[in-house]
Amino acid sequence: MSVSAIDFESAARALADTGRDLAARGWTPATSSNFSMRLDESSCAITISGRDKGRLGVDDFMRVDLDGRALDPGKKPSAETLLHTQLYRRFPEAGAVLHTHSLVQTVASRLFEADGFVELAGYELLKAFRGFETHDAMMRVPVFPNTQDMGELSHAVDSLFDAEVPMQAYLISGHGVYTWGRDLAETRRHLEAIEFLLACELELRRHRR
Amino acid sequence: MSVSAIDFESAARALADTGRDLAARGWTPATSSNFSMRLDESSCAITISGRDKGRLGVDDFMRVDLDGRALDPGKKPSAETLLHTQLYRRFPEAGAVLHTHSLVQTVASRLFEADGFVELAGYELLKAFRGFETHDAMMRVPVFPNTQDMGELSHAVDSLFDAEVPMQAYLISGHGVYTWGRDLAETRRHLEAIEFLLACELELRRHRR
Amino acid sequence: MSVSAIDFESAARALADTGRDLAARGWTPATSSNFSMRLDESSCAITISGRDKGRLGVDDFMRVDLDGRALDPGKKPSAETLLHTQLYRRFPEAGAVLHTHSLVQTVASRLFEADGFVELAGYELLKAFRGFETHDAMMRVPVFPNTQDMGELSHAVDSLFDAEVPMQAYLISGHGVYTWGRDLAETRRHLEAIEFLLACELELRRHRR
Amino acid sequence: MSVSAIDFESAARALADTGRDLAARGWTPATSSNFSMRLDESSCAITISGRDKGRLGVDDFMRVDLDGRALDPGKKPSAETLLHTQLYRRFPEAGAVLHTHSLVQTVASRLFEADGFVELAGYELLKAFRGFETHDAMMRVPVFPNTQDMGELSHAVDSLFDAEVPMQAYLISGHGVYTWGRDLAETRRHLEAIEFLLACELELRRHRR
Repeated sequence: MSVSAIDFESAARALADTGRDLAARGWTPATSSNFSMRLDESSCAITISGRDKGRLGVDDFMRVDLDGRALDPGKKPSAETLLHTQLYRRFPEAGAVLHTHSLVQTVASRLFEADGFVELAGYELLKAFRGFETHDAMMRVPVFPNTQDMGELSHAVDSLFDAEVPMQAYLISGHGVYTWGRDLAETRRHLEAIEFLLACELELRRHRR
Repeated sequence: MSVSAIDFESAARALADTGRDLAARGWTPATSSNFSMRLDESSCAITISGRDKGRLGVDDFMRVDLDGRALDPGKKPSAETLLHTQLYRRFPEAGAVLHTHSLVQTVASRLFEADGFVELAGYELLKAFRGFETHDAMMRVPVFPNTQDMGELSHAVDSLFDAEVPMQAYLISGHGVYTWGRDLAETRRHLEAIEFLLACELELRRHRR
Repeated sequence: MSVSAIDFESAARALADTGRDLAARGWTPATSSNFSMRLDESSCAITISGRDKGRLGVDDFMRVDLDGRALDPGKKPSAETLLHTQLYRRFPEAGAVLHTHSLVQTVASRLFEADGFVELAGYELLKAFRGFETHDAMMRVPVFPNTQDMGELSHAVDSLFDAEVPMQAYLISGHGVYTWGRDLAETRRHLEAIEFLLACELELRRHRR
Repeated sequence: MSVSAIDFESAARALADTGRDLAARGWTPATSSNFSMRLDESSCAITISGRDKGRLGVDDFMRVDLDGRALDPGKKPSAETLLHTQLYRRFPEAGAVLHTHSLVQTVASRLFEADGFVELAGYELLKAFRGFETHDAMMRVPVFPNTQDMGELSHAVDSLFDAEVPMQAYLISGHGVYTWGRDLAETRRHLEAIEFLLACELELRRHRR
């Protein structure tokens, strides 16, 4: 248990550092976004709702079980916690989840909502995603309609996983991105890559219309 | 009175920190913009006109009453002070006002001046505004024509308040935004949200034309 | 003379600080741009050509007379020095000149070269320029064709001054902006304002086409 | 040999500093990009694949010969090493090579792939490239199709060199830029200039369509 306490603090510090970097890029406006890391097979550390993501301290994190229930008395997890724990339950190898709200993510998600996905193909940076060994590939990033009902949203996400649609990130329309990886470094790499590739798509779209 | 003096200094320091952050984002070009915080029921601290908003010190602030009259001998408030004090008079719960001049605010205000407002709908980040609990909502940000006559401008703003049009921010065409909140943290959150949502609207507009 | 030596060092340090800020914004790419300050009625301090403008030290500056001749043995002024000294000769009140190469300046200068000027009207930030008291005004920023012949360029600039065309900045096509003011603070304010207003014009142009 | 060891460390530190600057601009997303410096006539120092380019230490570099073979036991060079060593073999005066993946580079390379090159003309900043003395010039930056076969890619590059097409940079479609120079300072200048000029071209293209 004291080992777990140490783990929690290390996780919180690593996520706070990441938050500072992501906030500086403008990807977490107006106290939005949330970040988590798996602590063990049945719990994770996650940001408490409503804090400035560029100035996080250990007290801005809490522990929850993988059904999203608080493990720290007196702290209340945000509704979106369920979208994090869903990923840890579904993927035993998932070690971290990042959810951000950049301009590019918000705009791309609205433009491509009607299609249901954004198609990314022919980019060298696809190789930043685990499992991609060449630029000569295609990745579909699903776009889900936004809802305040997290049960409905996690059900929609689960349906795609059940259909074995391969994905390492998904968008929620007008809202932002969720991405995950084996550890925080891989998850950051996925986040930087998805942001970059969505920005390329928007820019190419403006030129090609 | 010495308590008030301390309050003034704390307010000035908090606003100076905020100014440094906003200037670093380019929202206060060429010594533009002004910031204020309520000190008590009848006075506020406000920036003195013409200073570089990224390098403010306590001496760059002054105290004014809620009619905009100087409370510090030898310091002269800027004309726009009246737009701050109007908000403190009208809303007893208002604790801070931020006025900035970003590119996005300037361009959006000119593009939407003829409509008289910018309509923001369907964004998760609407929840950053007090009173909004869902993305499935619409917020209208009024756009007023610019004028150097602050009496005329404050009258136009008051007319909308009298008509009970709900708002937490307004634009002045070719000029910038005014936003307010219960305290400085909430006001910053409102400012970041309005900037972000106007930027999304401009970007979507470019894609959809 | 030792007073003048101190002045030179103070001027160099102030310009180096300014250079660090402007470089961080990306306005001085690839060692471009140059900066100067008047030392007295017959000389100024100016950057030596080819240095990284984000990392200037006192040794990266030299003194020249107002015909652009080196006053420091062993240092050679760049060709563009003549465009700085022209302004100090013409305007006894000019205390500083900044020349930068931002993306916005480069693109705007090429788009508006055929017109011969960029027209800026209706912006609150026009008030950042000395002599402008209202947004309800118009400022024309001349755009000169680029040339490697500084004599030709300074002659073109002088012709406009002789015609008493009011201006506080001019563009050179595909190249950048020159702006000046009574002191370095005013010149920076003019530079920030011209960059901001050109960026607004480009953005509005994209929306209005 | 101990001199060479010192050289390696100096080279690694200089490249790490450069990496920090380029990463801060967003030109090395998701651990992409690689950097090298010549150590002597038969070897260079180069980044090891997959590291965060904003946080490089000396251990993130290795020595390779000019056929791309590891000179440090236990370290494995990335496939793209061959594109660096090709340049050092071909150009005895080449002292450094920078390869980055910015948004502008990626988008421009895809838009101009069908043409086979990007044409840059009439920009003052062309003078940032060695050998250019005037803006009144034209530079063609070749765009090669992307491939994971570095032999094929280096062969395509060599064919252009054999045809004596002058170039100081080339793009790979959907991937990024390679540029080189006599030393690291010149190479950085070339990189900043190519990024700036490609950004200008994209912006002008949007305005002129």
